[in-house]
Amino acid sequence: MPRALVLLSGGLDSATCAALARDAGHDIFTLTFDYGSRHSKEVDAANALAQHFGSEKHMVFKLALDKIGGSALLDESEEIRQNGVADDIPSTYVPARNIIFLSIALAHAERFGCDAIFIGANAIDYSGYPDCRPEFIEAFQKMADVGTKRGAEGRPIQIVAPLVDLSKAEIINKGMVLGVPYNLTWSCYLGGEKKACGKCDACQFRLKGFEEAGYDDPIEYGN
Amino acid sequence: MPRALVLLSGGLDSATCAALARDAGHDIFTLTFDYGSRHSKEVDAANALAQHFGSEKHMVFKLALDKIGGSALLDESEEIRQNGVADDIPSTYVPARNIIFLSIALAHAERFGCDAIFIGANAIDYSGYPDCRPEFIEAFQKMADVGTKRGAEGRPIQIVAPLVDLSKAEIINKGMVLGVPYNLTWSCYLGGEKKACGKCDACQFRLKGFEEAGYDDPIEYGN
Repeated sequence: MPRALVLLSGGLDSATCAALARDAGHDIFTLTFDYGSRHSKEVDAANALAQHFGSEKHMVFKLALDKIGGSALLDESEEIRQNGVADDIPSTYVPARNIIFLSIALAHAERFGCDAIFIGANAIDYSGYPDCRPEFIEAFQKMADVGTKRGAEGRPIQIVAPLVDLSKAEIINKGMVLGVPYNLTWSCYLGGEKKACGKCDACQFRLKGFEEAGYDDPIEYGN
Repeated sequence: MPRALVLLSGGLDSATCAALARDAGHDIFTLTFDYGSRHSKEVDAANALAQHFGSEKHMVFKLALDKIGGSALLDESEEIRQNGVADDIPSTYVPARNIIFLSIALAHAERFGCDAIFIGANAIDYSGYPDCRPEFIEAFQKMADVGTKRGAEGRPIQIVAPLVDLSKAEIINKGMVLGVPYNLTWSCYLGGEKKACGKCDACQFRLKGFEEAGYDDPIEYGN
């Protein structure tokens, strides 16, 4: 079976992505970034999901994005916006995050002979990040085609972003059909001891998605 | 003065690049990757060069590319080719290296308000790496223009590869005019105690460059 590398953040989107990659008949390899965010709940969630999906090889790659800074997700001194969703690029934007993640994914895909990289980037409920848009994915593909050995040899690695045009509710609907264990996922930016905050952008998108999809979110909220 | 981020590997090309960025009137910031290659001589050389060029802020970013593997530069078990230069992509190719380096540079450039990133990529004496070609730099620029906050705001960060079309001799000629301290640079893949091997691809390109430029290479060779 062809191999696919799935970027597994521990969140709802990447979990759905893993299910789609497996459903499409790939042997899946999984890559999670431990990048110095405020809590390790996402990494724990990703480990659980990798096991659930039977990843052939689950890799956790350390990346000190907190040393760079420039984002409320990485810098304790900046406040994470809890008053909902706005039109501008929010304070949780991490400079070049998906660019960096996909670049390191390319290296892993070349190394382990994966023909595709699945990323759960999403442009609809995307919090305003420029590196979650379809035009970014297309531009990254073109760059990868000329910048990698595989591309230069005429066997380019495909960047697959199957959620890019879907609403959160549509993603959840797809995932429920495929049996994604959303109880294992973690979306909250704030990371309470056991429960998600329910207030940050990520929680709000998630809750709205479950509501619109007509399902109960299986994780606990409140602090 | 406008700020430029210079990727400083410790080698001859990136040192020349730093001199060109400064000569073009930039305040320079410098970024070096400590990426698990066989020796730290490159990082030491980069530190010395950053000091020489008066870098406003010199950053050493740890990146465990050796955990990914897939290159003789990173993996003790693969032999580094010492019999000169061939047409194919050599065993020292590190999967997606310049893609990863430029991606992390983008994040630093956004964070520190740099308008340009200078990279010493070189397509002439380039050892056959696909991510050293002008078409790669162009494709990366387009991707960065859509994938970053700066790009989305209409203030894209320019990727500048001033050496991309130059031979090693032309690079050295430019650098000598600008007073680049080539005695501080390190190019050898093998990294002897004090001296470069003189045999690997990198040493051969360097020695040939100095010979063609009509200068003596100020570093020592032999083991």
